[in-house]
Amino acid sequence: MRHGFAPAALSEPLCTRLKERRPQLAADVIRLTSLSASGHPGGSLSSLDALMLLYATINVDPKNPAMPERDRVVVSHGHISPGVYSTLADVGFFDIDEAFRGFRRAGSVFGGHIENVVPGVEWNTGNLGQGLSAGCGMAVAGRVRGYDYNVFVGMGDGEQQKGQISEARRFASRFKLSNLIAWIDVNGLQIGGATEDIMPFDLAASWRADGWNVIECDGHDFDALYGAFRSAALKQTNNPDAPTVILLRTVMGKGISFIENLAKFHGTTLNDEQAARAFAELGAENNLDALRARRTERSSNLPHHVERDTQVRLNTGPNRDYEPGTVTDCRSAYGAVLADLAALNAEDSEAWPVIGLSCDLEGSVKMNAFHAAVPDRFFEAGIAEHNTAVVAGAASISATIPFFSTFGMFGIVECYNQQRLNDQNGAAPRVVVTHCGMDVGEDGPTHQCIDYIPLAHNLFGFHLYSPADPNDADRILRYVAANHRPVFVTMGRSKLPVVTDGDGNAAFGGDYEFEPGRWPTVRPGDDAVIFAVGPMVYRAVEAAETLAAQGIGLRVVNAASLKPVDEEAILSAARQVGTLLTYEDHNVRTGLGALVSQTLGDHGVSARLKRMGVTRYGTSGKPNDLFAEQNLAPEDVVATVKALLQ
Amino acid sequence: MRHGFAPAALSEPLCTRLKERRPQLAADVIRLTSLSASGHPGGSLSSLDALMLLYATINVDPKNPAMPERDRVVVSHGHISPGVYSTLADVGFFDIDEAFRGFRRAGSVFGGHIENVVPGVEWNTGNLGQGLSAGCGMAVAGRVRGYDYNVFVGMGDGEQQKGQISEARRFASRFKLSNLIAWIDVNGLQIGGATEDIMPFDLAASWRADGWNVIECDGHDFDALYGAFRSAALKQTNNPDAPTVILLRTVMGKGISFIENLAKFHGTTLNDEQAARAFAELGAENNLDALRARRTERSSNLPHHVERDTQVRLNTGPNRDYEPGTVTDCRSAYGAVLADLAALNAEDSEAWPVIGLSCDLEGSVKMNAFHAAVPDRFFEAGIAEHNTAVVAGAASISATIPFFSTFGMFGIVECYNQQRLNDQNGAAPRVVVTHCGMDVGEDGPTHQCIDYIPLAHNLFGFHLYSPADPNDADRILRYVAANHRPVFVTMGRSKLPVVTDGDGNAAFGGDYEFEPGRWPTVRPGDDAVIFAVGPMVYRAVEAAETLAAQGIGLRVVNAASLKPVDEEAILSAARQVGTLLTYEDHNVRTGLGALVSQTLGDHGVSARLKRMGVTRYGTSGKPNDLFAEQNLAPEDVVATVKALLQ
Repeated sequence: MRHGFAPAALSEPLCTRLKERRPQLAADVIRLTSLSASGHPGGSLSSLDALMLLYATINVDPKNPAMPERDRVVVSHGHISPGVYSTLADVGFFDIDEAFRGFRRAGSVFGGHIENVVPGVEWNTGNLGQGLSAGCGMAVAGRVRGYDYNVFVGMGDGEQQKGQISEARRFASRFKLSNLIAWIDVNGLQIGGATEDIMPFDLAASWRADGWNVIECDGHDFDALYGAFRSAALKQTNNPDAPTVILLRTVMGKGISFIENLAKFHGTTLNDEQAARAFAELGAENNLDALRARRTERSSNLPHHVERDTQVRLNTGPNRDYEPGTVTDCRSAYGAVLADLAALNAEDSEAWPVIGLSCDLEGSVKMNAFHAAVPDRFFEAGIAEHNTAVVAGAASISATIPFFSTFGMFGIVECYNQQRLNDQNGAAPRVVVTHCGMDVGEDGPTHQCIDYIPLAHNLFGFHLYSPADPNDADRILRYVAANHRPVFVTMGRSKLPVVTDGDGNAAFGGDYEFEPGRWPTVRPGDDAVIFAVGPMVYRAVEAAETLAAQGIGLRVVNAASLKPVDEEAILSAARQVGTLLTYEDHNVRTGLGALVSQTLGDHGVSARLKRMGVTRYGTSGKPNDLFAEQNLAPEDVVATVKALLQ
Repeated sequence: MRHGFAPAALSEPLCTRLKERRPQLAADVIRLTSLSASGHPGGSLSSLDALMLLYATINVDPKNPAMPERDRVVVSHGHISPGVYSTLADVGFFDIDEAFRGFRRAGSVFGGHIENVVPGVEWNTGNLGQGLSAGCGMAVAGRVRGYDYNVFVGMGDGEQQKGQISEARRFASRFKLSNLIAWIDVNGLQIGGATEDIMPFDLAASWRADGWNVIECDGHDFDALYGAFRSAALKQTNNPDAPTVILLRTVMGKGISFIENLAKFHGTTLNDEQAARAFAELGAENNLDALRARRTERSSNLPHHVERDTQVRLNTGPNRDYEPGTVTDCRSAYGAVLADLAALNAEDSEAWPVIGLSCDLEGSVKMNAFHAAVPDRFFEAGIAEHNTAVVAGAASISATIPFFSTFGMFGIVECYNQQRLNDQNGAAPRVVVTHCGMDVGEDGPTHQCIDYIPLAHNLFGFHLYSPADPNDADRILRYVAANHRPVFVTMGRSKLPVVTDGDGNAAFGGDYEFEPGRWPTVRPGDDAVIFAVGPMVYRAVEAAETLAAQGIGLRVVNAASLKPVDEEAILSAARQVGTLLTYEDHNVRTGLGALVSQTLGDHGVSARLKRMGVTRYGTSGKPNDLFAEQNLAPEDVVATVKALLQ
């Protein structure tokens, strides 16, 4: 039976138990960090009481860590892993001995920064400033799924210097996420010294300015902590609709007299002699030698496994067909798919909720119809892409399907770091971005997202698809919705003709189905092969038709699956045809051309290869003019093919 | 004779002139956007009066736009380019006809978002939220170079939703940049509607919480604008040490009755009929047809050239030599170079100032000695990397040499978007980052910067160097200091032995000089060639020595110049030896291995190639254990070479 926040005060037996256990858990923090001779004891000890109070009261079940209705705890200052592991073990998520064995050892789940492969950990952190955004995402997921759980987000005070936190604060108060309760370990120190010296500002005032309730509290007094968290959880606050932050007055290194309030012990561990003194002060056993011996026996063998529902339930309906002759943009096809998904699943209470997130570009990314259909599942998140990317990622791990849409520059390039942490979390945001490539046109080089392909290839879990026309977009997006995987889908801005096969039929209409890692041939040809992507596919077809009239066969291949690539298509083209081109409106050094080139290099297959792509930052102008400026017009393809074949 | 801020009030003749010109400049905004049928009239008109007031009063010389002591104006909401071009032309930076001809046309300098190839524009913007950081960088440069110019940073109100602005605010107030004057065009609208609906918060309170003076003012009253800017410039404020922000109450579309206060006209242009109405209201000539005809004659021919001092003056002194047998880390060698630069140039008032910037990791990145030597040139910027990256970039364009150092994850991966805009600005930040690769060890996957190589290759201007040992680091860093170019220098965390040649001498000591694009051979060998980088170079040497004892010649090549690469070294090794390996602690799909592979693919040269690198996110453990986990130990090299040669 959990304690919960119903009682007016912390029950005396629980309070007594917490006080008794506190020195033992502090000793565990010292054990962990001294055993590994690395890690962060100082902040672990200043946050420890809050962690203990929370896990003793909130609705979690150590035997069922994935229980959907559980309260969530995000620890944004992930370096306090020793404090987190000690607390989680104490309430039964795992045996602390596993952490002693595995802390900061290659192959173990017990990393230096917390990861959600540890039972009880909800979200990997370590890059500071992202935890509050993750909490927002979990609160959003709870709302759309109809749970009333609370989300508790712990942060450091040095971390408050990160800008993303202000984005998350505003999102939370805009959407009245009053079940989001933040707490800050205000120990006053960061690596370089006092926070007040390094970057002074009025912390409480800045949270209030963004619409939060602010409570201050002694972070080492269990009764006070209970009162503060209870007020927040029961919404006994100035503004019950607003989220609440609790500023905890704490002491770095609390409980071990000779390290208290010393910034050095943020990241310095105690040597054996110091650890012995600490154990004596804490009344704890000095068993470092025995534990050290156990570490030589074996490391932790807890599995790298997250129990999580990844079986999407969603009716993606029949494909839409865009007939040859239609000219429209892929983003409109995207908008139609989103609207379909809303309509098709409206009556199915078991379907995973589709969520829409935009950053002041709802119209440009064509989310309007979705917004109108399911207004409570659409979140206009303002010009704040860092926060929004993490909201999407964190929502995705609670059986929802978040689509995050903005321009490619903002959703991928600007949020690369956030998408990276999403990926490490095993999250599955559907990042569907528009206005990619030189095709964005007049907005100029700042907006020309020509550099996203290697970013996707850097992230082990992400896939990357870039449709060639509205039919391709339609099929890709329905596939993406139904598959629990992090993905970038990239589109240009312009309207495109429907790509046709040699018989005049829609190349990607009818029965065509998208498959990752398979590059369909759009037009046959045996003199040269062009791998084209996105808005260059129909241009390649145009070039192929011109060449066909001159008796030259240019095979056109749609490389929409930019990750994974179709190695077989590349190698067989090289072996059978021998003359290859790549054609894209991305950086020619790092884009599709690089992928084809390195596939050849890897396999020791030689071919004549000409990469056509962007060779310098573009200027601001109409897409066709920009393409011409970079020798990327269909005429340039014709000339290049003929030169290669001479 | 400039007006300046000495007079107590705006002079009557100037005020009269501004009022007379205002409708004409508003008409120019309409001309520009209607001619190109794209662009942003609404915000251009709400910011116009502030721009006009500023350029009429501050210390700029249109005939000498690069005058070092000039006041700087940064316009962070770069989409209001029509307002900026109109104003700059009006004070004589160029003929407005050039903008009419070239606005938003491929190849012209007059982009949709402002770029500093336009005379009078200081900083390219378009990615929102970065301008205030650029202003901080310019203010820092002025301080260290002894100028007392003011920096005026204009921003939009929607843009205030970006988190980076809060980082910049705190930096500015921490370092008492009272010559930094921000102004916000509070027209109350963003693309999606009212800012108050989309993301409500207390703007004034949030600036005050970060230590700024806040002034409010009618943004369409020249006398009031003058008074507000004058108070800020003369520091007649609550806190004269603090920077000041002016909140301008404005009207989107001001001056054209039928577009005023309509969010739609943020980014929608007037058609000819609407433009005609606008010209009539403004008392301006409707010459759209004539101007349109001129656009068919020719586009703008203003050159893409920035007048800027790029001839670094700096004594980089003699190299330091680290003798064989020495074991130290590259970051200590970096710290020694920085300290040398401070000492060597202390007496030379003409030397370009070296600036140090760190984000709460001064000790880890070894900037302590530099900090102690020249405390007024060291800026501890807190845990706020986005802002700091831009500060470094913007400082670099005013004849200073900023070194920005933190962990690789934070300085490159997290700040990729900021470094990208630095690059587009022609800035030259020296981004020297440590703790890169799997070598960071126990901090785990969030901190393992294994993905930076393609990021550098995405950015056309940046170079990327990664030293193999302290001698290599010493030479690279002195080279970097003396060359005005944006660069990443990446290092691991661990101590390394001095790499030796076959004779036992330091491979990169003595007369060795670093040269971009040249990969030196460390050990000869004709059976196989291994291209290694960073902490893998000495491990490759170890493997080569093992293999040599078995009669196998493994040539070891140091690929420290990761951009540009040494294509000749790759191709000649492929042609002459034919068996190649790459060896790195980065993502094997996107790192050095990919560069070598695609060089082969590009040139149609086939070779046996084995890429050794990181194939999945690492765990948290000691570097050697992590290397072993990914089959990256020297023994793995030995086994791989033998397998390839079988």
